[in-house]
Formats: sequence, structure tokens, C-alpha cells
Amino acid sequence: MRLDTDPYLSRYADRARDLAASEIRALFAVVNRPEIVSFAGGMPDTAAMDLDAVAQLTAEVVRDHGHTALQYGGGQGREELREQLVEVMARGGAPATPDELLVTVGGQQGLELVAKCFVDPGDVVLAEGPTYVGGVGALSSHQADLRHVPMDAEGMRTDLLEEALAALKREGRRAKYVYTIPNHQNPGGVSLSEERRVHLAELAEEHDLLLLEDGAYSLLDFEGHVGTSLRSLVPDRVVYVGTMSKTFAPGVRTGWIAAPTPVRERLVVLREAADLCPGNLTQLVVERWLTTQPWEAQVKEYRALYAEKARTMLDALEAEMPAEVAWTRPSGGMFVWLTVPRGIDTSALLAKAIVNRVAYVPGRGFFGDGQGGDALRLCFSYASVERIREGVGRLAELLQGELALLRDVFGADAPELAGRRDEPGITGGGQGGGGTSRDPGPGWGVA
Amino acid sequence: MRLDTDPYLSRYADRARDLAASEIRALFAVVNRPEIVSFAGGMPDTAAMDLDAVAQLTAEVVRDHGHTALQYGGGQGREELREQLVEVMARGGAPATPDELLVTVGGQQGLELVAKCFVDPGDVVLAEGPTYVGGVGALSSHQADLRHVPMDAEGMRTDLLEEALAALKREGRRAKYVYTIPNHQNPGGVSLSEERRVHLAELAEEHDLLLLEDGAYSLLDFEGHVGTSLRSLVPDRVVYVGTMSKTFAPGVRTGWIAAPTPVRERLVVLREAADLCPGNLTQLVVERWLTTQPWEAQVKEYRALYAEKARTMLDALEAEMPAEVAWTRPSGGMFVWLTVPRGIDTSALLAKAIVNRVAYVPGRGFFGDGQGGDALRLCFSYASVERIREGVGRLAELLQGELALLRDVFGADAPELAGRRDEPGITGGGQGGGGTSRDPGPGWGVA
Repeated sequence: MRLDTDPYLSRYADRARDLAASEIRALFAVVNRPEIVSFAGGMPDTAAMDLDAVAQLTAEVVRDHGHTALQYGGGQGREELREQLVEVMARGGAPATPDELLVTVGGQQGLELVAKCFVDPGDVVLAEGPTYVGGVGALSSHQADLRHVPMDAEGMRTDLLEEALAALKREGRRAKYVYTIPNHQNPGGVSLSEERRVHLAELAEEHDLLLLEDGAYSLLDFEGHVGTSLRSLVPDRVVYVGTMSKTFAPGVRTGWIAAPTPVRERLVVLREAADLCPGNLTQLVVERWLTTQPWEAQVKEYRALYAEKARTMLDALEAEMPAEVAWTRPSGGMFVWLTVPRGIDTSALLAKAIVNRVAYVPGRGFFGDGQGGDALRLCFSYASVERIREGVGRLAELLQGELALLRDVFGADAPELAGRRDEPGITGGGQGGGGTSRDPGPGWGVA
Repeated sequence: MRLDTDPYLSRYADRARDLAASEIRALFAVVNRPEIVSFAGGMPDTAAMDLDAVAQLTAEVVRDHGHTALQYGGGQGREELREQLVEVMARGGAPATPDELLVTVGGQQGLELVAKCFVDPGDVVLAEGPTYVGGVGALSSHQADLRHVPMDAEGMRTDLLEEALAALKREGRRAKYVYTIPNHQNPGGVSLSEERRVHLAELAEEHDLLLLEDGAYSLLDFEGHVGTSLRSLVPDRVVYVGTMSKTFAPGVRTGWIAAPTPVRERLVVLREAADLCPGNLTQLVVERWLTTQPWEAQVKEYRALYAEKARTMLDALEAEMPAEVAWTRPSGGMFVWLTVPRGIDTSALLAKAIVNRVAYVPGRGFFGDGQGGDALRLCFSYASVERIREGVGRLAELLQGELALLRDVFGADAPELAGRRDEPGITGGGQGGGGTSRDPGPGWGVA
């Protein structure tokens, strides 16, 4: 249905008028076909899960706590689960009390509720560029003025954040908050250095800033390294969002927000208006998982599996990609950020990629301001190592073909062929991670 | 935490600034104590469920479809489930296609997404007065100008709706939509007559109106009667919200929206920004429930159980309540709406009621404009028949005491003692249902 034929158009709220099912979305409808190697969805490899154990504990939950499991619960979420989630946070070095927690429908609901709580239309929010597509979606749906701070191999350029804050001050404005994913950033695949964490905390104090710390990948460092949590540095200035989607399973849709009490109270009221309460059935399943199963061993298994898959992807990229292409070198998480010469539009290229049986997420989705047309995100966590090699091969072949076409049309020295390997940003020489870089619309059904 | 001590106050969005944990909310924290008979939460009696069957099918879902159950899914919800939900809608006389459906986190998320899709701050939405507290919460959270249309024993006074529409036209405004619960309305306990359904559909055509039809209680008529769905009368003008919370169980947090395709497309984008996707685990449980279990027999069991409980409550009210108190006579659903003399404030009375070991929801929560201080909602579906008798006795005793106090202070003929039995509205002589009546804030963790 095209916008100009929508008979309901005059009725929509401002925030919804320009939303439309994008072409990208239509393409994503086919990427789950078995012949396509998909690096698109940010999906954990649940093949690593012990399904019998989960089936058994799920049945136990219904048999032992059925009337609770099937009934409504409180809007903040079960206290028993919040106590467990505080323990999960502690493993990631982030302190919190159960009362500060609100159980959410995945990390995504956390990001949306925080936007709903703080963002009036036109309010400035700062975030890494690129940043999580669902974060862009949550902010867009509340009409935020999302501005990006470039990254390099050490994560967000806090010196450039400082400049952005000074520029805002000159405009007589302030940022409602700074959204950051310090560990194994999605989609950049880089982490914020320890020095910059301290700098970011100092900037928060100096500029009276609120930080939104997204800890989705905090436990997924390949070596088990735990970065210093912003919440441990400036707790009163940090709203923390966490998720069980990457350490347990996305299908239970369980995440949380940890926030100073007055903020948490408002968030509970907003969540009740949004969907009343988190489901007791899935809360009880996660609770039992955390209390009766070796969940830390499961996380270790995910780590080892993803380390192997990341190595496979990086080796294949090194072996197969043309010299004009750059990418980041993740030490954890689930993603590689890849930058191509400016003459190639990764949104336009996606249809061809799918014909060539490989899928990725075009870079524009990770920015609120149209950047990212020369970048794309590859997820290495879901596909098997064999499929990763195949998929990278197909993508490399496609890019070779595109570059040859550009050379034919523009000549070998054309600016369209210039890569960004030697520029600052998360593209630098393939050693760092993530570039600085228009909008296919939020979401493609997966994180 | 009081508002004036909240250090984050200057940061909130307009919609969140005035939100606060209300005193009512604090009171509701204690109503689940066993010594208290709670008529507060709109909770189904899950004691009627076969827990062994649910435990078994839940384990089967994880064992047979574990990797799907634990993984992300599409934002619209599983097609297999949408096909089943279309069948559930058909039992309630509401036509839809699976493509028109969006699976939501309970009916509440449906109400919120529709508000987010259509309501800019200050936009007028019309609804029955009183109306579902969660509907008020969803609209308040999007700063709607919620205006109420009174009800009588035949539901919404469509003649007064017509007047309201004419008045809006004179103001040069229009309603973004009309929210209605035609069957066994929450909290009024009355249904829209067949004549008025036709009138409402005619008004929709004449005034180019969009209707939000909430079918939560459509299958819960004590006699199995199915009212004509607005969606069957003017399908292009109706967005329908449904839920499995009342026919299966709230703990799986599964509802849906059925909307014309262009609207449904936008709603999917908004839902992905809100929480990415409905959980596969709970979707598969509901799917298997609907395909392998005698779900219609379960609904019949709920109906028979609630018919008995309603009869018990109505008999007890008749036997125990002072003459100044009026109430509605539900023929289905889960609620009785009770109106007291104007001198009694049901919000203020709640603390006393809880001391007397009985709980209800004060009437103001069901209005967006401060009405309802002389009314309250009683839920008959959850408490046992013995507890219903006990609870009504305790409430009657409390009201007798309040009336005696009013007589002592003001004299027996004071206007504070005047009941509303002989006035129009859903208070009329205890034969109709629901009055026209300030805001404890949205939500108390239960529908």
C-alpha cells in the first residue's frame, strides 16, 4: 500500500505519518529462506541451548506455579526475578538494587520506555554513530532529534562528544540523554576504552548529563573481560538497559531497566500504560533458568562459539574482500561493521545480494540522519562456520563485481572508488571499527 | 519519592512529568493479602484451567519447536497464530483476515499502539464514561483529550455521542476515534444494544469516524449470546482489539489488533520500535492451546463459573446494600459498577475498605476527567462465591457506617446523602449500569 493511496493518512499522529513498510523490510521477508546465508538478523545461536532442560523447567513452572504463571502480575515485574537480574548485572560490573529494576519485554521495550519518559518531539539525544537500529526506531517513534558521535577502534570519540555538548550549549539546548553501548557495540563491533569510560563519566558530571547504558553484550567478551560499567562510575546519572536475549534466549522476551528510583517509578506507570505487566510465564521460566541451571556456563558456551565464528568471518573477510573494503575487528558480541567505497550504495545493493544468496543489514538503518549508505552490518553469531565462509565469499564476489562496474563507468581513480580505510572513524585500516556515515525505517523483526 | 524532591524532574518529557505513583497504587500493593477479599483486579479465575494440559503442551512446544520458541520472530506475529485468532474473532462475530492482524502483548498493547498511531497531544478521543482504566492510561500517556459519553443499561448513549460529535464540529475539531467496549463493558458491566450498534455504525459513516472496538469480553456472555460486531457493520472504519487474557490466560500476554492493511502496516512498525516482536514461546503455547485443546469448552466453563459468581454478587448486593447505593446487572463479563451517594468519596474510602478487609477499584480511574468519585468497580470473576458474600457484606457494612456518619454530620436530608438511583446513566435504579462521574493515575497492575 503506497502512502498516497492510504485513506487513513489524514488521521495519523505526526509520529506515525511518515512511517511506512520500507523496501528493505520487504526484502527481509525472504532472508530466512534456507538457500540464503543471512548475516542480517542479530540472532543468538540457540543451537547451543539444552532444549530438554528448558522444556523440563518450563513444564515444572506451569505445574508448580501454574496459577501464578497464567495470571496477571505487577507492572514492575516479579521481585524474585529482579533479584536474579541484579546478580546478572553484577557479573557485568553494574551495581543495582532489585527495587531499581523494571522487567521489560526485551531490551527494546527498555529503550522505548526511556525515550517515552524523557523525549518530547525535537529533543536532542546523542548516540554513537552507527548505533543499534532498535534504538534509532525507539527514538524516531518519539520524534527525537538524534545526533551521532563518531566512533573509532576505542568506541565513542568522547572528545567529539565534548565538542557536540559545547555546540549544543551554544545553541541554548541540551541533550536529554546520551545513548551508548559501551561493550561490543551493535553494530560497530568495538568497545569503549577504559580511559574514555572515565572521560564519559566526567563529561556527565560536568554537563549534568543523563546516560543510557545498554549492556546487551556486556557478558559476551570472547575472553570473558568485563569493561567498567558506567553505572559503577556515576550511578545517579545512568539508566541501564539489560536483556536476557543474548545470554539466554530472545524468545522469552525478557529484559530490564535499572534506574534511580524516581525515574523507575515513572517508567513503571508508562509500562502499565503500554502493556500492563511482563508475562508471569516467561518471567518464571527465566527465574528458574537462573536459579536451577548453570547459566554462566551457557554464557561461556555462547562466548566460545561466537569467538570461533568471529574468527571464521574475519579470516574469510581478510582472504576474500577487495582492498577497498574495511571492517572492524570485534573482541566480543555478535557483529562486524563493514565499510565500502562511496560509489556503492549498500541499501540498493541488498536486492542483488539476496539474489546472490547472502543478506546483511544496510548501514543507513543504524543512523537517524541518513548516514551509513556506504556501510553494512554483518552478524556472525547465527550462521554456522561453513555458512559464514560461503556467505562472505558470495558478498566478496558481489562487491568485486560492483567495483569492476564502477571502474568501467568512472575509471579506476574515480572518487566513487575511494575506500575509507585510511580515514578516521570505525573504518580505519580494518584495525578499528565502525564508520561515520538515510533511513529504511526502524526494525526488521530482529535485533 | 515526592515530585518536588525528584532531581530528574526537569528532564522528563511532558507526557511523563505529571506521572506519579499514586496513593491508590500504594494501597493496591496490599490487596493480595489472603485476609482481604479483593474485588479490585480484573482477573480471570484460572482455577478453571487444566494446568496439567497446559504444562504438557508448553513442554511439547519447547521440545518440538525449541529453536523457534527461543528465537526472535517477526514483528507482526506468527502467521499460524494469526490464522487461529481470526477463528476466535469469528466466534465473536468479528470478521478479519490473518494479514489484518498484529499479535500484541495482551489487549493493552493494542490500545497503546492505536493511541500512538493516531493521537497527537491534545487530540480528542471519545469513549464511554466510565471506560477501561488501561484505555485511559494508554490515552493519557499520549496526552489525548479524552471525552466521555455517558452510558445507560443499553450501553453508550449514542444520542449523546451524536451531540458530542456535533459540538466538536462546531469547535472545528474532530475525534481521532471513538473507543468502545460493546460487550459487557469494563467497568460498566452493560452491553451496547443492537439498535445502538446500528446507530453507532451510521454515525461513523455520517461523521467519517474511526471506531476502536475492544472485544475483550465478547465471548463471555453468560448465555453465550454474541452481539453484532462493529467490525461486521463498518469494517473499513473499525480497528479491533482482542485478547486471550479472558478466554485463556493473562500470563501468556497475548492479544491482537485487527486493522485495515495501511493502518496495520504502520502499527507493525510502531510495535517493532516498542518491543521488536511478540515472544515465540508464548505464541506457540497459545497456538497449540487453540489447535489441540477444547478451548471453546474452556470458555463455556469460564462463562458458567462467572454467571454463578455474578448471581452470588448481585444477590448479596440486593440483600446487604443500603437503599442509597445503586449497581449494574451484568449479563456477562467480569464486572459490576456501583454508585454511592455523593457525600462518599470512593478514592478516600479505599483505605478504610482495606482495613475492613475488602478491596475495589475507585471510580475515578475509569475517567480521564475527574468524574467517578461516587462510584467503584467490583470484579466478580476472581473471588470464590463464599468470599464474594463475605466481601459484599464487609463493603455494605462500611457503606452503612459512612452513611450513618453523613447523617450525623449533615442531617438525613442533606444532598450529600442523595443517591443516584433515580437519575439517568448506568446507575438508574440498580437496573441499568454505570454512572457518569478525578485520576489516581493509570493502571494497578491488573486489567
